[in-house]
Amino acid sequence: MKKVEFFMLLLCFIAASFLVSADPPTCPADLGGKCSDSDDWQGDFFPEIPKIKYEGPSSKNPLAYRWYNAEEEILGKKMKDWFRFSVAFWHTFRGTGGDPFGAATKYWPWEDGTNSVSMAKRRMRANFEFLKKLGVDWWCFHDRDIAPDGTTLEESNKNLDEVIELAKELQKGSKIKPLWGTAQLFLHPRYMHGGATSSEVGVYAYAAAQVKKAMEVTHYLGGENYVFWGGREGYQTLLNTDMGRELDHLARFFEAAVAYKKKIGFKGTLLIEPKPQEPTKHQYDWDAATAANFLRKYGLIDEFKLNIECNHATLSGHTCHHELETARINGLLGNIDANTGDAQTGWDTDQFLTDVGEATMVMMSVIKNGGIAPGGFNFDAKLRRESTDVEDLFIAHISGMDTMARGLRNAVKILEEGSLSELVRKRYATWDSELGKQIEEGKADFEYLEKKAKEFGEPKVSSAKQELAEMIFQSAM
Amino acid sequence: MKKVEFFMLLLCFIAASFLVSADPPTCPADLGGKCSDSDDWQGDFFPEIPKIKYEGPSSKNPLAYRWYNAEEEILGKKMKDWFRFSVAFWHTFRGTGGDPFGAATKYWPWEDGTNSVSMAKRRMRANFEFLKKLGVDWWCFHDRDIAPDGTTLEESNKNLDEVIELAKELQKGSKIKPLWGTAQLFLHPRYMHGGATSSEVGVYAYAAAQVKKAMEVTHYLGGENYVFWGGREGYQTLLNTDMGRELDHLARFFEAAVAYKKKIGFKGTLLIEPKPQEPTKHQYDWDAATAANFLRKYGLIDEFKLNIECNHATLSGHTCHHELETARINGLLGNIDANTGDAQTGWDTDQFLTDVGEATMVMMSVIKNGGIAPGGFNFDAKLRRESTDVEDLFIAHISGMDTMARGLRNAVKILEEGSLSELVRKRYATWDSELGKQIEEGKADFEYLEKKAKEFGEPKVSSAKQELAEMIFQSAM
Amino acid sequence: MKKVEFFMLLLCFIAASFLVSADPPTCPADLGGKCSDSDDWQGDFFPEIPKIKYEGPSSKNPLAYRWYNAEEEILGKKMKDWFRFSVAFWHTFRGTGGDPFGAATKYWPWEDGTNSVSMAKRRMRANFEFLKKLGVDWWCFHDRDIAPDGTTLEESNKNLDEVIELAKELQKGSKIKPLWGTAQLFLHPRYMHGGATSSEVGVYAYAAAQVKKAMEVTHYLGGENYVFWGGREGYQTLLNTDMGRELDHLARFFEAAVAYKKKIGFKGTLLIEPKPQEPTKHQYDWDAATAANFLRKYGLIDEFKLNIECNHATLSGHTCHHELETARINGLLGNIDANTGDAQTGWDTDQFLTDVGEATMVMMSVIKNGGIAPGGFNFDAKLRRESTDVEDLFIAHISGMDTMARGLRNAVKILEEGSLSELVRKRYATWDSELGKQIEEGKADFEYLEKKAKEFGEPKVSSAKQELAEMIFQSAM
Amino acid sequence: MKKVEFFMLLLCFIAASFLVSADPPTCPADLGGKCSDSDDWQGDFFPEIPKIKYEGPSSKNPLAYRWYNAEEEILGKKMKDWFRFSVAFWHTFRGTGGDPFGAATKYWPWEDGTNSVSMAKRRMRANFEFLKKLGVDWWCFHDRDIAPDGTTLEESNKNLDEVIELAKELQKGSKIKPLWGTAQLFLHPRYMHGGATSSEVGVYAYAAAQVKKAMEVTHYLGGENYVFWGGREGYQTLLNTDMGRELDHLARFFEAAVAYKKKIGFKGTLLIEPKPQEPTKHQYDWDAATAANFLRKYGLIDEFKLNIECNHATLSGHTCHHELETARINGLLGNIDANTGDAQTGWDTDQFLTDVGEATMVMMSVIKNGGIAPGGFNFDAKLRRESTDVEDLFIAHISGMDTMARGLRNAVKILEEGSLSELVRKRYATWDSELGKQIEEGKADFEYLEKKAKEFGEPKVSSAKQELAEMIFQSAM
Repeated sequence: MKKVEFFMLLLCFIAASFLVSADPPTCPADLGGKCSDSDDWQGDFFPEIPKIKYEGPSSKNPLAYRWYNAEEEILGKKMKDWFRFSVAFWHTFRGTGGDPFGAATKYWPWEDGTNSVSMAKRRMRANFEFLKKLGVDWWCFHDRDIAPDGTTLEESNKNLDEVIELAKELQKGSKIKPLWGTAQLFLHPRYMHGGATSSEVGVYAYAAAQVKKAMEVTHYLGGENYVFWGGREGYQTLLNTDMGRELDHLARFFEAAVAYKKKIGFKGTLLIEPKPQEPTKHQYDWDAATAANFLRKYGLIDEFKLNIECNHATLSGHTCHHELETARINGLLGNIDANTGDAQTGWDTDQFLTDVGEATMVMMSVIKNGGIAPGGFNFDAKLRRESTDVEDLFIAHISGMDTMARGLRNAVKILEEGSLSELVRKRYATWDSELGKQIEEGKADFEYLEKKAKEFGEPKVSSAKQELAEMIFQSAM
Repeated sequence: MKKVEFFMLLLCFIAASFLVSADPPTCPADLGGKCSDSDDWQGDFFPEIPKIKYEGPSSKNPLAYRWYNAEEEILGKKMKDWFRFSVAFWHTFRGTGGDPFGAATKYWPWEDGTNSVSMAKRRMRANFEFLKKLGVDWWCFHDRDIAPDGTTLEESNKNLDEVIELAKELQKGSKIKPLWGTAQLFLHPRYMHGGATSSEVGVYAYAAAQVKKAMEVTHYLGGENYVFWGGREGYQTLLNTDMGRELDHLARFFEAAVAYKKKIGFKGTLLIEPKPQEPTKHQYDWDAATAANFLRKYGLIDEFKLNIECNHATLSGHTCHHELETARINGLLGNIDANTGDAQTGWDTDQFLTDVGEATMVMMSVIKNGGIAPGGFNFDAKLRRESTDVEDLFIAHISGMDTMARGLRNAVKILEEGSLSELVRKRYATWDSELGKQIEEGKADFEYLEKKAKEFGEPKVSSAKQELAEMIFQSAM
Repeated sequence: MKKVEFFMLLLCFIAASFLVSADPPTCPADLGGKCSDSDDWQGDFFPEIPKIKYEGPSSKNPLAYRWYNAEEEILGKKMKDWFRFSVAFWHTFRGTGGDPFGAATKYWPWEDGTNSVSMAKRRMRANFEFLKKLGVDWWCFHDRDIAPDGTTLEESNKNLDEVIELAKELQKGSKIKPLWGTAQLFLHPRYMHGGATSSEVGVYAYAAAQVKKAMEVTHYLGGENYVFWGGREGYQTLLNTDMGRELDHLARFFEAAVAYKKKIGFKGTLLIEPKPQEPTKHQYDWDAATAANFLRKYGLIDEFKLNIECNHATLSGHTCHHELETARINGLLGNIDANTGDAQTGWDTDQFLTDVGEATMVMMSVIKNGGIAPGGFNFDAKLRRESTDVEDLFIAHISGMDTMARGLRNAVKILEEGSLSELVRKRYATWDSELGKQIEEGKADFEYLEKKAKEFGEPKVSSAKQELAEMIFQSAM
Repeated sequence: MKKVEFFMLLLCFIAASFLVSADPPTCPADLGGKCSDSDDWQGDFFPEIPKIKYEGPSSKNPLAYRWYNAEEEILGKKMKDWFRFSVAFWHTFRGTGGDPFGAATKYWPWEDGTNSVSMAKRRMRANFEFLKKLGVDWWCFHDRDIAPDGTTLEESNKNLDEVIELAKELQKGSKIKPLWGTAQLFLHPRYMHGGATSSEVGVYAYAAAQVKKAMEVTHYLGGENYVFWGGREGYQTLLNTDMGRELDHLARFFEAAVAYKKKIGFKGTLLIEPKPQEPTKHQYDWDAATAANFLRKYGLIDEFKLNIECNHATLSGHTCHHELETARINGLLGNIDANTGDAQTGWDTDQFLTDVGEATMVMMSVIKNGGIAPGGFNFDAKLRRESTDVEDLFIAHISGMDTMARGLRNAVKILEEGSLSELVRKRYATWDSELGKQIEEGKADFEYLEKKAKEFGEPKVSSAKQELAEMIFQSAM
């Protein structure tokens, strides 16, 4: 195959690839069906949606907050500062409703069916209008959601720059900025074997170039964190995989990322987002503990924190609360991807969390952590495929924010009421003794402990009072 | 929105939809990169692949059979008649390698990047060459894989007719014909709430029209079965679903299908393919027992059989062997979708089965059933996303066929060796008594049984010898 | 081995067997350590626990109801009549805290460490005091929890009669009676291969005799239902199992049970309790649909209903709500085992349900069903192994009852508020048309439907509004 | 309660506890039913079982090896030295067949129904006869399986010493010794909240005393490793748990164990055995990566290795192969608990592995690791509850050993045939370049990589050839 042919093929291929799962395949409902490639549609993407306001629990208005009251102070901090809510650009503006068995279902009025730079810019304007109507100050993005891939790295970067310039301009005069940015290293077929862990060294280099640029633009927009989700950093079968070598490559990659971050003066936190599997059969950042082991093994533990996603937590066999606590006690709780999965399905459903009990446990961890700034709560959540009204985008976010707000209110109620922490305090009371202190200070060897055990005789063991703990917890809901 | 606009939108939408997950977004490697829309490429799609032959277990040739020897007689039947292997058009010729996180990865040389009728015909020719080189006489298809959707039902039917005509012609002079056909009621967004169980009555009518046509063309091509896989016949949440009403609609739909089958003189078996979930959170034909309950409840039990897929079996919490046996003892074992899943993942991976032990259990059921004709073994299995060579298509099918062939050989060995069936016979020996007979004939009431129990005293209970059974089974591998 | 030896062995064996998992291996804390075998301890088992009263949501008293107000009328029925709560004798009075890796942890003051008839009677008195203090009118039992097994069937029956006589006497003057009784066909080693599906015909007879007696005593005590939970009716491996023959035996067994029920004039409902697995690898009554298929296949569908347990539902891959709805639309919703499992564990944890959202969905089904009398809500739930205080037994039941009560209150709120049912009504509105009616009446064949589909053109498909439905649902919590 | 009463209670309690799940509640079949407490039965526990010999693959004798040929050399090492097979005392000699729903089913002829020291000694003799007949040189034990618990720590230690003395004597003149010993910190109710992570400081001291003694006796018998399986080191609910504090205690405990090991001159490896859950809802040593993170966090990484159990691997969502490889590349592969689980059940079934494919993958890891001495393969596997013949104990072990032997033979075949490793080599070939070397040496920063990526243009990405890899792998079976 000649070189020209190869590029034609490539172009054709790439264009098609984007259509496959990134592009809302729609035409603009309000522009008379013309698939216009101009950047002229600047206003009122959501003409029928008012600015969302707090109306209190008795409101029946689905387009109002019932529990989230941004400026209300709770435990000395405004609600908005506890949460630092963020909209995920990819789900909200690039989600098509496609699934492994079905085509796109959503065709938003502002989409023109293309993947052009001007369409990208129009979408960015929609994003800012959405953020403002919702009253949210942060957003998250992958490089390739917000600007189209080009046929070369240079062209992709140019496209990205153009959209970033607009975003920068749109941010002006507002408090809006990225909670975090990231590079999309999983959609394009070049990444089918991974990015940093690809079996092809050229892909590793390409991934590095892409992350470099994504870090630069995140920094430029004032982003507060930078995320690594290794969607394809894993394996499909061990039969054809050199896991040890791939993990070494991943470590080299992260080291280079740390060095580059410092070089450009980016102060944001680097975050790893664990997920057990999907798309690969096994993803290297399986869960919080696995990611922590990796970071410790390669001496990177002080350079990274974790972005815990609730749906990823349950897919790995843990509760979200467990993953948050594991991150917290390892000093790694950096950000939360606020979503949930379906308890009966074995894949990532990325639903908006509406379980108030779970939200309460999440907020108990966050309070213990003293908040999560500079991290926040990113809604890595998408509309169900069958939810196709523009207003559904608002309803879903409102519902998610209200759920988290109820969680915060309940967690504070439990904390202030005090009987749950009293129950825990009592449970460990015997450790607040001389012997407890000696053990905790590493001063009790086996011979000393044996002597003590013989002195004590059979130890008394108290009820764990789990049902009482659950009763106290539920009563606060 | 005016009507014209609506149709433009629709057209745009449909075109894009197809690109999303049905269309291998590639250009023809051997045609100089031109996305030609002609039907002129008639020959030698697989120039480097020889006709696959049986070379026996010692062969090292990946493009040869080591265990599958089509004409060899086993238990009085040729191997090819035990299996009646079928290639699934959708996976082999429309699989793109796309997944929820990634774009297409495969670009076969014969693809031109379009979804045109002439591309469809070229693909059909590739299918027949593939079947012949593999030495397989059956194929399976959805209406929408083999011919492109049109903007109206009439146009879709016309497209389908044109491709069917070619298939008919290609079948001539060979033994090749469809093992089964089916209608694709899940990809298009109109089916997002289901086909027969959609909340929209118009979709039900549309689905009926589509199934009517698919049954007609299956019949026309000499297809031996017709399959219903209800990919979207289920729910995402019970909160917005009237499950009872939807199931009633499904029953009405099946009744109409039975009536129409009889009307057109189609003698093939109607098959329901159970699957627990995915794409919906809950699919109505959850597993074999659930489908059987549905058929019995609505008086359809004599009109349908089941198409058991191994990967669906494991997703529903059962072994494949269990589902086959459940179908068999309910008189419903009609066809097998020969694939497997990954034991650690919670979604449908549709892998080629390579576990000889599992294949052996499958064949034990098939032998007990006296074969499965007019059903067969359809390879509802796809290449891994990262397998991108044309030869991988052959290797995967050869590996799958050889695995099943080893399963058959082992099952026969176990049967002929006899110690496993002797173990089972002994286990139930006490039932081959007078009392056993009375009970089995329904002549033993509780009072009689109590009398017997008192006479017997404490019953003797023998070892189940599971480890011995496993040892016998494994030794035959 | 001589006969005498065999009986000695048997005796030794049976005694030990009971100690294994049925017997709280404790000595009476308040009786000076003497393992007294007398029936003299008649009173005040729970001296420090008051009669539990309704104190309303603001109460901080763990020994009071906050939401369950027995006499309060809701939708024209008293709360107590909606629920018909029942205490499970086996968990509450025979649960020891033993698990596969650990010994018993609970030693209640009234236990004397024996499995004698007089201990059984003392325990029955404790049961009645417990019921009265809790304000609950129903209890459930297995034959072998309430009275010790003897060395012969005759002796076991005699033991049972003696305890039943006491229970009858204790019931007098109260409204207390069994919600249901059942026979324990899983603990004793004779049942290791099953009861009705044992590979040994003598075990089948023994099981029949045991069920016969258990039905008699349930009837005698005024029990309102009789339950079959087939703990060992299933298989460990298909390699040594004749599943078809075993299921035929099970059907014969149920036919005999139906006949005997009629013969003795027992009017209670016969209930099958589905469970997917544990203790066997595969239990025949896997889930509601599987049990329904079995009942239909053998013509037993009008003679049985189902007892749905929430923890069993989730183990089979369904929500509890799904199983209730499946039972309901098959006309089989008979009783509810009100408990829950742990979403991350793969075995039956039998926890008290404290999730108000789940309780609300349960009650939505119950209200749709018009209540579940003569069934009720049996607390098939146990204290955690580590909960060892007597008061924990009360706290757990109160917490479970309050959770269900909140569920009822919320379900009514949702119903009365109306927007969720309005959302559903709208979703199916197109079915309330002429065409909808024709289809539902079986008058629309494929040709007619095709004609309609062509007339309609592309059907309009509305948003499913799942996020709105979830918002409405959660707002009622 | 007075002190005397307390001890009576305790005695009663402990005796009963043992009966619950540790004690085969049987009487000696060959001793006329007398529950004799003497230590006089010294010989021929398995009179009908011959010494198990290698007879080759064509043998039909279930009491012979078909693939395991102890003295045969493979890759320069005898088969017995590759495996170092070990019998697990607890399953083989203390397994009763009890499960959460059922009593004991096994009554071996040598059991007398007591938990006396003399019964313990008789059992130890049976163990040595079993090892010799099987031709196995290692055994594993918990302190409390081999000798009865006493009413005080002193008495327990005395009991243990007496049995250990016998074991020492029985070892004499043979090569038999413990592969490893361990302390049982999960059965007794004192450990219900954990041992080292108990909420009661007295329990921590008791656990230390018990581990101290168990290490001493393991050392005394020439044991080659010491294992920590933290069955109860975890939590049931986070609501009542201080996870951070508990993990700190666990680290202190391990530090003390390391110090004590050194003090007494024990050179054996300390091993942690990961398990995700069961009996606790969440066990702290969830999987290999979690255990590694813990060891690294607390500076213990050089003092411990891991004991990987296949059934635990699958319960944590991984393949056994994955866990072995994870341990290996972290330098932690110390021992293998050779068993398997049921792919459809969510609890630990501890079955003997009979899947040759899985065994082959296990052996591929072991060969890569250069063997696992001083670790070995411990059969942490038990007879099914329904397998009640003495010969079943032998059949199960023979089947497990033969399966592993086939795995070794297959792994060597794959290695020597070479095409699988060639496939892997080719896959990573681009890394064996100048750039690959620079990256692996940490010399390629993001700027350099970006430059390279721009030079390269779109990287070429090859097929992963998974189906070919699977075909090669399966063909070697």
